[in-house]
Amino acid sequence: MRSTHGYGARHPEQELTLRTIERRELRPDDVAVRVTYCGVCYTDLSALRSLSDREGDDLLVPGHEFVGEVVAAGAEVTRFRVGDQVAVGNIVDSCGTCDLCRAGQENFCAEFPTLTYGGRDRHDGTTTLGGYSGEYVVREDFVYHRPANLDAASVAPLLCAGVTVWEPLRRWQAGPGTTVGVAGLGGLGHLAVRLAKALGARVVVLTRSPGKADDARALGADDVVVTTEERELARAAGTVDLLIDTISAPHEPGPLLRLVALDGTLVSLGYLGPISLETMDLLIGRKSLASAGSGGRPRTQELLDFCGEHGITADVEVLPSAQVSTALRRLAANDVRYRFVLDLSDLPAVRAVV
Amino acid sequence: MRSTHGYGARHPEQELTLRTIERRELRPDDVAVRVTYCGVCYTDLSALRSLSDREGDDLLVPGHEFVGEVVAAGAEVTRFRVGDQVAVGNIVDSCGTCDLCRAGQENFCAEFPTLTYGGRDRHDGTTTLGGYSGEYVVREDFVYHRPANLDAASVAPLLCAGVTVWEPLRRWQAGPGTTVGVAGLGGLGHLAVRLAKALGARVVVLTRSPGKADDARALGADDVVVTTEERELARAAGTVDLLIDTISAPHEPGPLLRLVALDGTLVSLGYLGPISLETMDLLIGRKSLASAGSGGRPRTQELLDFCGEHGITADVEVLPSAQVSTALRRLAANDVRYRFVLDLSDLPAVRAVV
Repeated sequence: MRSTHGYGARHPEQELTLRTIERRELRPDDVAVRVTYCGVCYTDLSALRSLSDREGDDLLVPGHEFVGEVVAAGAEVTRFRVGDQVAVGNIVDSCGTCDLCRAGQENFCAEFPTLTYGGRDRHDGTTTLGGYSGEYVVREDFVYHRPANLDAASVAPLLCAGVTVWEPLRRWQAGPGTTVGVAGLGGLGHLAVRLAKALGARVVVLTRSPGKADDARALGADDVVVTTEERELARAAGTVDLLIDTISAPHEPGPLLRLVALDGTLVSLGYLGPISLETMDLLIGRKSLASAGSGGRPRTQELLDFCGEHGITADVEVLPSAQVSTALRRLAANDVRYRFVLDLSDLPAVRAVV
Repeated sequence: MRSTHGYGARHPEQELTLRTIERRELRPDDVAVRVTYCGVCYTDLSALRSLSDREGDDLLVPGHEFVGEVVAAGAEVTRFRVGDQVAVGNIVDSCGTCDLCRAGQENFCAEFPTLTYGGRDRHDGTTTLGGYSGEYVVREDFVYHRPANLDAASVAPLLCAGVTVWEPLRRWQAGPGTTVGVAGLGGLGHLAVRLAKALGARVVVLTRSPGKADDARALGADDVVVTTEERELARAAGTVDLLIDTISAPHEPGPLLRLVALDGTLVSLGYLGPISLETMDLLIGRKSLASAGSGGRPRTQELLDFCGEHGITADVEVLPSAQVSTALRRLAANDVRYRFVLDLSDLPAVRAVV
């Protein structure tokens, strides 16, 4: 086994602490990635909160949007060499044979993809441990080349937040002549604005906070609609072709659907739970309600290449890895613009342990 | 005024009876259509049932999918002449200036379209009376040319049932390489099968009745899935790109969504009311739920032209107009394959009355 360090917890009330963790010896198609920066995602917070005392035997090491450098490669690895600058997202394996995998949407794998942390390795059955660590061992097929011209720390959030908004922008063909609405201006939302704008769409930010208008425009938004103002909502009714809803708190789709244009789509990112829906809100204007999450391999690499070409990264606040608890606490309080990234290059070097 | 005959009722328990009704004198952009055949739609049944004794002052004359011949034309009419074979659907006017009207979706007019019956005329405020009658007076813009090669009675249902399935087939680009599912094999469903097939799609009929399999295949279906059989559902899971749900009884979208393919759409035709939705059924496979109804002017004419080219009509049972109550009673009992059409050419001739 290879040992490294990682920040983990076993129980919900426990703070994350630095521990020695083990990575598998490289299989022929594995690479070992020395992690330098890892984004702090809401999912990390949710996963920690959902630890239970009873099920708490497995260590949870969060982190599923990280960048780093290849430090070792298995015998059959063809796409990477030691020294390559790479990135890893929130899935690290899938069945590879179902219709969804073959369509390049491994995130929807019919046999469920292997998650970067808290997943079950398809070969040895161990629980995967995430990127809040010094090193990660992963199949090369789930590793991405990273544009050399972009700041490494600011790239990390592209691997989860970025691809989560990129997939619907591409699926619903955001581009010149379309209006993209972005509800919520956080980690996902701020990237949705930048990416939609770079794709050539007109971008409208929907926010409850009038104070976010300047930020939205600075990110590239053409218009800002304050959703607590009835007059603002009326002005924007029926104008948005693709409305990307990044709001994670439970909410009904009705008010947002009213902003959607003829034949337009409201897509909620992530799992909203069961909702009630007044179908008249869909019928008039033949609107669609969709849900999406995460991304597949082809569009993840496509996103990184696109960001390299257009100089797009996330706005991040980088913290030393020892401040992981501060990052999580402030994230829980929505006190971040727009993504925390942990600097894991400060961890002690990887040690090979027999 | 022009007087004609029509079958109408004022109260929910009342049978439709033949009455003398009045049509407006032709405005400059009006034509008068001598009605020959009118389809019997579920909406007619619903409208009759929803008459109330209190609100029962307005006479209800149903009928919003009819064919006939132009017998008079206003001074400014340019597209029609006396003797033209025409058809009229379920809307007869709209604002003409909103975004939806300008997009050719007058059915979703922001100021609400004028319905063919039970609507409010935009000029004189009178209640519109439908096509179960000898003559109809209507703006030429809401009249369609009818292919000469098609049986007149069998064309009538294209004007409501037909365009209601045609619009989603076109919106979601049914054609070669796509699989279209049709849930429910009634007036709408049987036309959806024929039209999807003629567009080049692979067609799967979803039905609870194994006995309908032969009918479905005779209409052109490539496959039939009996939705009460778990094994059949499993076989078809994730294979349908566009699932057209014509089932009018209240039902949840979940079971049908499981049949929808990656990036596919389930579209419910007509108003389903409020529903509850498990958003995980949308998330996995990034599926869309939509609702649609009726059609706009461009695609109505497009449908009629397409049907003329491909020799497509509805399967109808033609009844003398005096049997209107029989038609409604049997429709309520689902005893029709697949649409009743009333022969209104048997009514006494139109009389001009001072």
